[in-house]
Amino acid sequence: MCHHCVIDAVKSDMLSRRSFFRGGLAAAAGAALAVAAPPAPLFAAETPTKAEDLTHELYDTFPTYFGGQQLFYDKKFDFAKDTFNLYELRVSEHTGTHIDAPLHFTADGKSVAELPVEDLIAPLVVIDIAAKAAENADAQVTPDDIKAWVDKNGDLPAGAVVAMHSGWGAHLGTEKFRNASADGKSLHFPGFHVEAAQYLIEQPSIKAIAVDTLSLDFGASPDFIVHKTWLSSGRYGIEGVANLGNVPAKGATIVVGAPKVRGGTGGPARIFALV
Amino acid sequence: MCHHCVIDAVKSDMLSRRSFFRGGLAAAAGAALAVAAPPAPLFAAETPTKAEDLTHELYDTFPTYFGGQQLFYDKKFDFAKDTFNLYELRVSEHTGTHIDAPLHFTADGKSVAELPVEDLIAPLVVIDIAAKAAENADAQVTPDDIKAWVDKNGDLPAGAVVAMHSGWGAHLGTEKFRNASADGKSLHFPGFHVEAAQYLIEQPSIKAIAVDTLSLDFGASPDFIVHKTWLSSGRYGIEGVANLGNVPAKGATIVVGAPKVRGGTGGPARIFALV
Ligand SMILES: [Zn+2]
Ligand SMILES: [Zn+2]
Repeated sequence: MCHHCVIDAVKSDMLSRRSFFRGGLAAAAGAALAVAAPPAPLFAAETPTKAEDLTHELYDTFPTYFGGQQLFYDKKFDFAKDTFNLYELRVSEHTGTHIDAPLHFTADGKSVAELPVEDLIAPLVVIDIAAKAAENADAQVTPDDIKAWVDKNGDLPAGAVVAMHSGWGAHLGTEKFRNASADGKSLHFPGFHVEAAQYLIEQPSIKAIAVDTLSLDFGASPDFIVHKTWLSSGRYGIEGVANLGNVPAKGATIVVGAPKVRGGTGGPARIFALV
Repeated sequence: MCHHCVIDAVKSDMLSRRSFFRGGLAAAAGAALAVAAPPAPLFAAETPTKAEDLTHELYDTFPTYFGGQQLFYDKKFDFAKDTFNLYELRVSEHTGTHIDAPLHFTADGKSVAELPVEDLIAPLVVIDIAAKAAENADAQVTPDDIKAWVDKNGDLPAGAVVAMHSGWGAHLGTEKFRNASADGKSLHFPGFHVEAAQYLIEQPSIKAIAVDTLSLDFGASPDFIVHKTWLSSGRYGIEGVANLGNVPAKGATIVVGAPKVRGGTGGPARIFALV
């Protein structure tokens, strides 16, 4: 690493509240200077004027990764009889538009309640792979896709959440959303390639990755390697994001209303883009 | 109503996306002019630079209005055995920091999934009644408290969410949060007075009311009159809001991450103030 690169790495690391927990020269230098370091930005540069809902409505037959029903309603009080309505819900944490906390794929990573607020609001980067996903359901976001975004839009904003827009949300309500093979043994929808996850892990200020499909890994993945790689880096993921086609590639701020359930490994979230 | 008042009412109504659904001369005039009407603002005038978490962490023994446990964990997958962790949760919609949708106290009002996104982001007004609540656990927000806020801060911002800050969040984790009488038959904590709810209903752009206690009504209410009055006006409520003491009386933007559960009467929400 040349001197110039070290300085850049230090600057980049100073933008991250994770700098204390990383090894190497850059991190040590970053830690030494951290008193004066600004936190990673929460907001995109543009001042928002409206909000886009990045959340799918959740219902009992919302498609799931494992295929079974993951939301059940139990009406405990009814207006006609009780003067008010109230349900008890039974729901898997990993249902609908939802969070994957580091604890989902680690022994003792951060729970969903432990994600810092500063990681839940972020500049939003939208990587559009809809064209190749339309050709190939097994398409993945690669480092080249991220580099193409940078060529067009400039560096990834510090502190960003990086989202895959595969256009898969249009298939919700059809079999194509899960796109199971005839024998039911494999699913076919887009996701991140592990090399893209690794590329983003090298940029410590990046807060999360997000997908508009059922999994951070592409459906045909045999091993959840992106889940393992990304979540064990201490960062979180978002699955089943909606309406990414309605927000710009750069310039929106994502607000991630993650559930604050103690010890939770994730959970259905309400997510907005401020545009 | 004098001519001047009609004009003011029309202007005020034009700020509301509810103008089409309201009776009377003002609404009719508002509807006629509605093509050019701006929507109620989403954002406070000030550009935010940080976020405050207005959400309590939710845990299984989080205090509840009815007194019983309302969150139960069922661990379905465990990292050591399965390579990942996952819980199924059983939870009452009205637990922790949560939403009351109109459907909670009406036969067919809006469900939590039907709340417009434009109602979930709003200028935040904080009415501080902590001093009188410290003297009297049965304190209520009255029209005079709102007028005192206006005297100090100017008119209520169009499209605001109006929150009661009673300081009651400091009692979470103690018996005083519910503050049940010795016989267990009545609770004693602050809430909105029905006259304050009616006062705010007269301003159609106001999107929601919020409390830092277990109920929109004060604990000793025999009849849920504020729930009935406010929710049947088509607006929603927020209960168990945290950290209102950390945000200004005026100038913050509240972002309400309401769950988007089809047909839901409310539910645990992640709520931020952008300051
Ligand atoms: Zn998940
Ligand atoms: Zn409630």
